[in-house]
Amino acid sequence: MKVSSLLGERLKTVSDDIAIESQSLMLRGGYIKNVGNGIYSFYPLAQRISRKIQNIIRQEMDAIDGQEVLFPVVMPASLWQESGRYYSIGAEMARFKDRSGADLVLGMTHEEASVHLAKNTAKSYTQYPFMIYQIQTKFRDEARARGGLIRVREFTMKDGYSFHTSQEDLEKYYYRCFDAYDRIFKRVGLKNFVAVKSDSGMMGGSVSHEFMLLTPIGEDTLAICSDEKCGYRANMEAAQTVVNNIGGEVEELKEVSTPSVKTIDDLCAFLKTDAKKLCKAVVYQINEDDSYVVVFVRGDLEVNETKLRNYLKKEIHKAQEITVESGIVAGFIGPKDFKGKAKVLYDSSLIGINSLISGANKNDTHVTGLNIERDIGKVEYVDLSKIYEGAICPKCGKPTITLSNGIEIGNIFQLGTKYSKSMNMTYVDENNTPQYPIMGCYGIGVGRLIASICEESHDKFGPIWPISVAPFDVEICNLRADDDEVNKVCEELYETLPRMGYDVLYDDRNIRPGSMFADADLFGCPIRVIVSPKNLANGVVEIVTRDKSFRIEKPVSEAAEQVMFLAIKLEQEYKIK
Amino acid sequence: MKVSSLLGERLKTVSDDIAIESQSLMLRGGYIKNVGNGIYSFYPLAQRISRKIQNIIRQEMDAIDGQEVLFPVVMPASLWQESGRYYSIGAEMARFKDRSGADLVLGMTHEEASVHLAKNTAKSYTQYPFMIYQIQTKFRDEARARGGLIRVREFTMKDGYSFHTSQEDLEKYYYRCFDAYDRIFKRVGLKNFVAVKSDSGMMGGSVSHEFMLLTPIGEDTLAICSDEKCGYRANMEAAQTVVNNIGGEVEELKEVSTPSVKTIDDLCAFLKTDAKKLCKAVVYQINEDDSYVVVFVRGDLEVNETKLRNYLKKEIHKAQEITVESGIVAGFIGPKDFKGKAKVLYDSSLIGINSLISGANKNDTHVTGLNIERDIGKVEYVDLSKIYEGAICPKCGKPTITLSNGIEIGNIFQLGTKYSKSMNMTYVDENNTPQYPIMGCYGIGVGRLIASICEESHDKFGPIWPISVAPFDVEICNLRADDDEVNKVCEELYETLPRMGYDVLYDDRNIRPGSMFADADLFGCPIRVIVSPKNLANGVVEIVTRDKSFRIEKPVSEAAEQVMFLAIKLEQEYKIK
Repeated sequence: MKVSSLLGERLKTVSDDIAIESQSLMLRGGYIKNVGNGIYSFYPLAQRISRKIQNIIRQEMDAIDGQEVLFPVVMPASLWQESGRYYSIGAEMARFKDRSGADLVLGMTHEEASVHLAKNTAKSYTQYPFMIYQIQTKFRDEARARGGLIRVREFTMKDGYSFHTSQEDLEKYYYRCFDAYDRIFKRVGLKNFVAVKSDSGMMGGSVSHEFMLLTPIGEDTLAICSDEKCGYRANMEAAQTVVNNIGGEVEELKEVSTPSVKTIDDLCAFLKTDAKKLCKAVVYQINEDDSYVVVFVRGDLEVNETKLRNYLKKEIHKAQEITVESGIVAGFIGPKDFKGKAKVLYDSSLIGINSLISGANKNDTHVTGLNIERDIGKVEYVDLSKIYEGAICPKCGKPTITLSNGIEIGNIFQLGTKYSKSMNMTYVDENNTPQYPIMGCYGIGVGRLIASICEESHDKFGPIWPISVAPFDVEICNLRADDDEVNKVCEELYETLPRMGYDVLYDDRNIRPGSMFADADLFGCPIRVIVSPKNLANGVVEIVTRDKSFRIEKPVSEAAEQVMFLAIKLEQEYKIK
Repeated sequence: MKVSSLLGERLKTVSDDIAIESQSLMLRGGYIKNVGNGIYSFYPLAQRISRKIQNIIRQEMDAIDGQEVLFPVVMPASLWQESGRYYSIGAEMARFKDRSGADLVLGMTHEEASVHLAKNTAKSYTQYPFMIYQIQTKFRDEARARGGLIRVREFTMKDGYSFHTSQEDLEKYYYRCFDAYDRIFKRVGLKNFVAVKSDSGMMGGSVSHEFMLLTPIGEDTLAICSDEKCGYRANMEAAQTVVNNIGGEVEELKEVSTPSVKTIDDLCAFLKTDAKKLCKAVVYQINEDDSYVVVFVRGDLEVNETKLRNYLKKEIHKAQEITVESGIVAGFIGPKDFKGKAKVLYDSSLIGINSLISGANKNDTHVTGLNIERDIGKVEYVDLSKIYEGAICPKCGKPTITLSNGIEIGNIFQLGTKYSKSMNMTYVDENNTPQYPIMGCYGIGVGRLIASICEESHDKFGPIWPISVAPFDVEICNLRADDDEVNKVCEELYETLPRMGYDVLYDDRNIRPGSMFADADLFGCPIRVIVSPKNLANGVVEIVTRDKSFRIEKPVSEAAEQVMFLAIKLEQEYKIK
């Protein structure tokens, strides 16, 4: 491909609003163009990267016996009514009516479609296990599209679905797929990624993992044990908060007047105590009926809303207003003598503290010396708090938890029988008894992966694409397009290198070297061959890597071979041992 | 791939309603599964074919300097409002609102998106010409989905858009793409296809061609000159009807009473004349205001509604009811003394007939001896009639027109500046003057192509896939899965053949030969290797082609080589010379 013909414009600047570097560079380099909120077209550069990534994904899915299929983007609502998700998913799912008035939806994931395809086909246990996958467009009406390809509404996704006759078989396959994902992310050139246990959310099922690229721009927070031998990693949403309270002295329960004390900090200052001795109340409301939920949690910790949501199995929100009728005395809520109309929950961070300070359920009043067992009785403790920097690792028990931001680049779920049961998919086992297959599902978003690679591998001038996914392996820079000798050498290389199996971009434009190099940095091709009259006077061309770590002059006759050596070296970096 | 693991069920029968053989065979063979009206999922077999076709398309598009891009499936309505098609396209386009209330549409074609992507990027004439294409899902809310993948609502399509600075340059590229299409259809194994001139319909533009597979199940009718030297071919919708009337005697205009004459046949019988002497009236209504249009046409011909629609540039329908107020005397309409409230059109089939019979615009009355020039005056004649079997070829002038049915498998359009003008895309020419680029567009539906190949190449037992697109090149049939020697030979071939570059399907199931061969016919793999204890007793395996034209026994040690010879021979059939 010649740069003079390549569609896509390189820009000097983009809007100041764009804070994410991959987004800025991919807009500046002519990779993507915004069509609407969270909707992009791909210029040839991005589409080339996308196809290389898709091929790597396809190879790895085929290697674990995946069978490529195709599900529709547009599906009848009836399919989603069968599983019940037509009702449980909200505005994220796009819905419309066709010309006959029938309800249709746009696929945001394809569990239902996979069961529909496999149902009535895999009828005997002898046909199990199997995995089917597709690479297809999805649409999710995200409330907050952001960051270029990081969080969009329309995206290309690889989604796979496996079907099993036992939990053991699912687990065996699940970890095979785990390993395939690990290989995929290594092969596309990512370095700083981890797999973490995650919350399964709307997918249903129990065990699930997210593959996360560690990066400050990530929207997710990960809890990682800094002891590498331990290796504990989880999404903050799913990480168990372990608290080892030292009991402390038992004290008498006493009321104290606390006028004009509004916050936890106020209270600590007023009573000269530490937030760890406080029993804080956080009030939520259940969406469907606005009824109240009061969570008691140690004063220095936060409630993890995902844990609360999963425990209640209901959607919730922070209480906006606490009515007088509720009997809840806002600001002074405590376990003792609580008479509000609310569900009361105790976070496990309160276990084992002998003497707590809490609200007294009266205005301007707190109690000290609260001992839950003595003063309240036996309560159920639930893990509802957010893990924090320096927390105790739930695996190794040391206070070694660190928090990092991450972008989710892939996820795998053990779905169980949620979909096979609700959609009544069965097979007969060895004893001719009907059984529901146990499912797993496995997703990777291609566009987000492109942005993540760019986010991890760039400098201020442009992306530094790993050779496994680069739109072109090599760029030839012709520094004097009006010089016959320079043209001749460039054109020979432009003929030779593709014959050796390399994708070559040729900048044949008659522009100044500064502009050409700026564009070349935005193209991010791993290897660059620079042909100039000055070098040719010495019989050489210059070969450099995009990351600028390597630079060599070579006789024209050895240029192609040098490119090959460099390419092999770069390819080795992403080879799986 | 082993058949025991392959997802997809083979069926003995399908519903009697299915009259199209490709649809029946692809359902019976486990290629596709209906998800909703005009919406299918692809089992692995169909997806494998789809990917092979996509690769062929991609190679040919790249060979004519196409650049692969990706446009969104979901687009903001504003993009289609810019071109005006948001308003001019009806229920075919799916529309919905997102969570913020913004109007979105599903892409049924991507002219607007292509202009959006190229606009502000290709700003100088030096960047022209270029062609961008994508392979992507489309949704068209067809009123009459039918025939399996022949006419669906959701489909995968290759659509390309080229941009030029002159009509000459567009035409040069247009015919390059024409040739690429010809190569694509040959390479996927189609034999009986033709390119015909077509009506451009909603795409706008002037010159366009459709590539048509000639088949009795085709929905389109083609007019083809049977003189091969002439080579005239057109879609019936676009074919000019040439009529050479022999003037005949001039007669006096006379009224005749024609009581109880209802039809053209009645009238011919009553007046003992030929339909070619009649001036028939056909009444339409314009959709937007129900106003009438009367078309006068020679009695033996039909009105071509597409020609009428294009002439009026309005949507029309056959008049359902002719009101008394209109002043049109239904059943007795004629040019002479016509006083109805209607637009009147004269088809060119009436040119040069000296004496016509027509209605007299009075009940139960006709006139004879009507001479349009003498009795009506100078009228404009328009080509509005359907071409017919035996009609005069508009190219060579001989009465050699034959009609054939065809399926449209691809189309190419010269769009002109319709989209660049309406969306205000400009570049500057050599003189620094802004100009609108001239566009072409080029489409191939992948799913329909799969069905078309199957339709052309099958027997009553199953598809006979051309080796270039077959889901697998070779199938190994193990006739005794409980025989160690048979298993050993099968498994060696199952290892060897893939290493030689072939896609291999291995039927490893312990089933009866009759069932295995029936399934093998449905899989349609071009080459089959049959391994049985009986053959192995003689040291041989049996190698046959799916079309059953070739059968040979070969020693086990020569089997792989024989497969290679056969594959090369089959590949030659689809090579472009």
